[in-house]
Amino acid sequence: MVRLLGIDPGLRFTGWGLVEADGNRLRHLADGVIGSDAEESVPERLKFLHDALAALLAEHRPDEAAVEETYVNRNGAATLKLGYARGVALLAPTLRGIPVSEYGAKTVKLAVVGTGGASKEQVQMMVRRLLPGATLRRADAADALAVAICHAHHRASRTRWNAGVVMA
Amino acid sequence: MVRLLGIDPGLRFTGWGLVEADGNRLRHLADGVIGSDAEESVPERLKFLHDALAALLAEHRPDEAAVEETYVNRNGAATLKLGYARGVALLAPTLRGIPVSEYGAKTVKLAVVGTGGASKEQVQMMVRRLLPGATLRRADAADALAVAICHAHHRASRTRWNAGVVMA
Repeated sequence: MVRLLGIDPGLRFTGWGLVEADGNRLRHLADGVIGSDAEESVPERLKFLHDALAALLAEHRPDEAAVEETYVNRNGAATLKLGYARGVALLAPTLRGIPVSEYGAKTVKLAVVGTGGASKEQVQMMVRRLLPGATLRRADAADALAVAICHAHHRASRTRWNAGVVMA
Repeated sequence: MVRLLGIDPGLRFTGWGLVEADGNRLRHLADGVIGSDAEESVPERLKFLHDALAALLAEHRPDEAAVEETYVNRNGAATLKLGYARGVALLAPTLRGIPVSEYGAKTVKLAVVGTGGASKEQVQMMVRRLLPGATLRRADAADALAVAICHAHHRASRTRWNAGVVMA
């Protein structure tokens, strides 16, 4: 059994979700949203995000983390700000020796819903179905749980494949 | 007298330059480039950049840091990667209680050369003239020293202005 932390980063809101995975069997442990104060300076907001992620990692001690590689469809300034938050989300677990995987939005949808073109609503519905305990008060937390589910499926396939190789 | 660290961040190469400022009088202390291994994963490269900046901060103990807000003129994926590196460059000093200022490329050129439209070569020439000890083996280090010079000028003006207010 492993604990997996999914992160959906953003400078304003960063969603997170923690699941326990036993092969393909999943259990919801916790989720939430880290919101930074838009009145603060960008360096202070990045420190706030880093410190909040560090506190989560210390409290829940996940074995692995996964970050959604949000698609880029906006202007340069917005993309740069998203980059800051994603940089911090990739850094915080790595600094603590926790491996981080990245998954594109299509890969997450494919793993959770079965089609890369699924809508946000379909993703949320499937996250609810796969993780009955999740409350999903915020969409950012649902997306974070979706990337955790995606990582659970991918690592389960890898583990089976590796086990096959070892036994051969 | 204060020590100012200038940073010109990038995922591949991050330039840094350290100057000592006594009002408008400047002295070159050190400069260099942090290069990350393109073969490594992005999270590992961000950790490498963070750890290298942390080592620099511990060794040179700057009082303040300044980061160049590089302009955005490339595709979304490149901008996102630049954002990762800038996020780490803004975070590393802030985590250690060192204030970080941001300056746009035009502001840096204006402070160093006297015109916001100066070429890269003009900036390098003026950095050499203002900081005779700088070797500038790499352009990234020159840009980092330029942002440190820009910060020195801006904080000197602020200090004079604040002193005037206090004395009034």
